[in-house]
Amino acid sequence: MSDAQENALVLERLFAVIESRKGGDADASYTAKLLSRGTEKIAQKVGEEAVETVIAAMGTDIDALAGESADLLYHLLVLWADKGLDPAVVWTVLAEREGISGIAEKASRTE
Amino acid sequence: MSDAQENALVLERLFAVIESRKGGDADASYTAKLLSRGTEKIAQKVGEEAVETVIAAMGTDIDALAGESADLLYHLLVLWADKGLDPAVVWTVLAEREGISGIAEKASRTE
Amino acid sequence: MSDAQENALVLERLFAVIESRKGGDADASYTAKLLSRGTEKIAQKVGEEAVETVIAAMGTDIDALAGESADLLYHLLVLWADKGLDPAVVWTVLAEREGISGIAEKASRTE
Amino acid sequence: MSDAQENALVLERLFAVIESRKGGDADASYTAKLLSRGTEKIAQKVGEEAVETVIAAMGTDIDALAGESADLLYHLLVLWADKGLDPAVVWTVLAEREGISGIAEKASRTE
Repeated sequence: MSDAQENALVLERLFAVIESRKGGDADASYTAKLLSRGTEKIAQKVGEEAVETVIAAMGTDIDALAGESADLLYHLLVLWADKGLDPAVVWTVLAEREGISGIAEKASRTE
Repeated sequence: MSDAQENALVLERLFAVIESRKGGDADASYTAKLLSRGTEKIAQKVGEEAVETVIAAMGTDIDALAGESADLLYHLLVLWADKGLDPAVVWTVLAEREGISGIAEKASRTE
Repeated sequence: MSDAQENALVLERLFAVIESRKGGDADASYTAKLLSRGTEKIAQKVGEEAVETVIAAMGTDIDALAGESADLLYHLLVLWADKGLDPAVVWTVLAEREGISGIAEKASRTE
Repeated sequence: MSDAQENALVLERLFAVIESRKGGDADASYTAKLLSRGTEKIAQKVGEEAVETVIAAMGTDIDALAGESADLLYHLLVLWADKGLDPAVVWTVLAEREGISGIAEKASRTE
């Protein structure tokens, strides 16, 4: 696998780390603490990071957008872990939307 | 590469498709149309899909959460394409947060 | 009452109109239609209008911000009607936060 | 004016308080501090409070919804103060949408 591919798999590795923090020491780990607070609080963080991503997108600092996007993805993974959603399910949904007609056409049909 | 890894790379493939739609026929492709509408509209869609993800997380339908998460990720990729943000930059940010101290500790320091 | 006060009471009047649309013809009234779709959809609209308000705030078009703010307030009122929340309860919450200590200090304590 | 009307005018009074905090001591007042941080941060708070309102709406605690709605309204007023938007302009926008055809019909036309 190329280095680029290794990097692209970071969400997989990160999800495994998040899963391993379930039931862990909330004082030692931000992830363990967040998981212990439950779905409502985790969903709230996803919403907040999305707002920050939107605001960063309206500006010109591309590094800020990368940072906020990373925060959003991390909290989305925590939400999946909390809800028992396997990332593989989401990858499959996205893969199914590729193919011949493409996500673009699929989206236009459901819009 | 395993099938699971192939699937995990779907965001990479999807980003390439989105990039290829830049300047394309807005009547034939939802992605091309969205890209043609500009940052403000794309960022708005990211925010809207995040809200739908949050609402799905408050319910019990795990497939709905997977679907909304996929929509959120797709629109986030469109936003990156619009802003000229290479996904590799975001993967690197996330990878840097792994490592010894871990994203958990990093996050706790910046919270 | 002054004209300014009359205008400031528009939220009261608007809420009464929204309440009157409950159970009304969904084909004839956007409000009746939205109410018929239930809490999840109404909450989603509140979130979407908030995102649009945030985006408008990042720009320079003050009329756009006024318009998006009005949309947000209208959908918030529909949400209150759907949930059986009397606006008077919200006004009382806000009024209680005024007074000697002020909302500023109250907010700083709960931040 | 009735007590109910007095309460309904709380947004007017609150806006006046917020305006008076402009340039005030950021250490002594949450409002002054928030105003000193600028549009981006204030808009972010509006987005965050909207997310919390959406989440509260998905639950059954009506007092929580009232509290989050109050937080959302307060931060929206701070945003208006920051952007120089007079509340009277928003009331006028909302009042114009009332009238014979009603906001419902107006909204349905522009939806």
